Amino acid sequence: MNKEEYFLEKYLKPCAGVNKQFPLEIGDDCAVITFSEDLLISSDNSVVDVHFPNTFDPYFIAYRSVAIAASDIIAMGAYPEGYLLNITLPEPSDQWFKQFSNGISDFNNDYGTNLIGGDLTKGQLNISVTVFGKKFKNIIKRGGAEVDDEIYVSNAIGHGKQGYELYKKQIFDLPNQYLKPKLLSKEAIKALNPILNSAIDVSDGLLLDLNRICEQSQKGAVVSINDHVFTNSIEDIVGGDDYVLLFTCPSKHNELVKKILPNSIKLGSITQEKEILVTDKTGKNINFKNLGWDSL
Amino acid sequence: MNKEEYFLEKYLKPCAGVNKQFPLEIGDDCAVITFSEDLLISSDNSVVDVHFPNTFDPYFIAYRSVAIAASDIIAMGAYPEGYLLNITLPEPSDQWFKQFSNGISDFNNDYGTNLIGGDLTKGQLNISVTVFGKKFKNIIKRGGAEVDDEIYVSNAIGHGKQGYELYKKQIFDLPNQYLKPKLLSKEAIKALNPILNSAIDVSDGLLLDLNRICEQSQKGAVVSINDHVFTNSIEDIVGGDDYVLLFTCPSKHNELVKKILPNSIKLGSITQEKEILVTDKTGKNINFKNLGWDSL
Repeated sequence: MNKEEYFLEKYLKPCAGVNKQFPLEIGDDCAVITFSEDLLISSDNSVVDVHFPNTFDPYFIAYRSVAIAASDIIAMGAYPEGYLLNITLPEPSDQWFKQFSNGISDFNNDYGTNLIGGDLTKGQLNISVTVFGKKFKNIIKRGGAEVDDEIYVSNAIGHGKQGYELYKKQIFDLPNQYLKPKLLSKEAIKALNPILNSAIDVSDGLLLDLNRICEQSQKGAVVSINDHVFTNSIEDIVGGDDYVLLFTCPSKHNELVKKILPNSIKLGSITQEKEILVTDKTGKNINFKNLGWDSL
Repeated sequence: MNKEEYFLEKYLKPCAGVNKQFPLEIGDDCAVITFSEDLLISSDNSVVDVHFPNTFDPYFIAYRSVAIAASDIIAMGAYPEGYLLNITLPEPSDQWFKQFSNGISDFNNDYGTNLIGGDLTKGQLNISVTVFGKKFKNIIKRGGAEVDDEIYVSNAIGHGKQGYELYKKQIFDLPNQYLKPKLLSKEAIKALNPILNSAIDVSDGLLLDLNRICEQSQKGAVVSINDHVFTNSIEDIVGGDDYVLLFTCPSKHNELVKKILPNSIKLGSITQEKEILVTDKTGKNINFKNLGWDSL
């Protein structure tokens, strides 16, 4: 048994699930997925010193990396059923893998998700997660927003940034949206799916991600940033790391949205004119030079 | 448009295909796969200074990284229909992406494969490829070898190592199995699929990979290493980077194997006793301390 096999067998195989949808045990050249519905798939890298600090606990590296990737599946109106995990790390050790696999295991328990395969390699710490889910009723794209759709976020913006500030002060109290991003439940996204016209994962900043919806839908938006939209200050809306759902749907579903997502906040509505107008609580127009975060 | 979007739009989107199986254009949170058959999926990282030298041309980085990952799908008796590409690189530039995307484009043309999504991130150069294919008749596992199965490789071992030696001398003549690994064609793997009992991708060394088949099948093997098995010297069989198919099937298919894969070489057969006996051309037992390559 070589080192790759040793760590895989000891720490990652016990995190892996075998069931009807994922019939093959880890240890072949591929994993197998047996879905009869369309499959949504997304792949995301989390790199040391870019997406998390180099002092980060391997438990949180694991939990956060998988959560961030899984968030993209929810953003298209589906649910993360399983994932592949490619780990690149400089010095593998039992201690590192023990903590890391605890993070994997807790994520899997929290979300009913399965690790089904992956790869271990030597190099700068870099976690690549490829996650997939089954289509519910519709595939919710960024480009589906309609004029007069109401615009919502599933929760206030800024919890990620707030969590990071706490982490920097070595305060590890949970919940912390930076350390362990909380995603929508399977029930919530399944119930929400049929009424959504468009959706995106708020990861690079609210305005940047709203801009993506508007551009791909060839529409504009009028949004009002009241105090309950952000956690700390209005600057939160150009920060990243939120992992909340930004979505649009016809206004007639207002009550259903509140029922499914009690913490959701209405921001405004979609317009025909292709520009985004942002006002603060006093009605004053606000401009942000920099709309959000860039990973390059 | 931020830098990630700029490079994605300019260089990678033109490499991406939209068709019945992959109905969504790049640019949403996920890609969509509409297969009605079981899906085989595998993810592989190629890291600078581990899997390729830091002087490597971005064209070959792209071609080789995708080929290596795709090889795992063929190793389970399927064909790589599409893939996601996560690129981590220290300094993105137009020149780098131009060469890299040429490699992607050539691979796609050579194999009829589709790029359907991915991710760009800053960090040490690391290419993560998640590739998937549809099941043909059977899913060919490592653990399916039967007693008296004949053991084959699809081509002689050592072309990868030989290609690397040429590369080090700055000789770039093609074909070169290190720079541009050549994989089995769709026709070949589809024709081979129904007769295979077990298969594996020879990437870490012939003996290490044969050992994996034997362990998972709870069998042994008797193999004879004649001169035509290796390219240069008998040491080739513990080298890596071959990306040929090692497979077993009942002896009655001997002629069909030769017809489908004219370059294939019969190595020996599967035995009940759980040990691997390797003899050289004179019939002398040979032992290798180190069976192959470890990525950690």
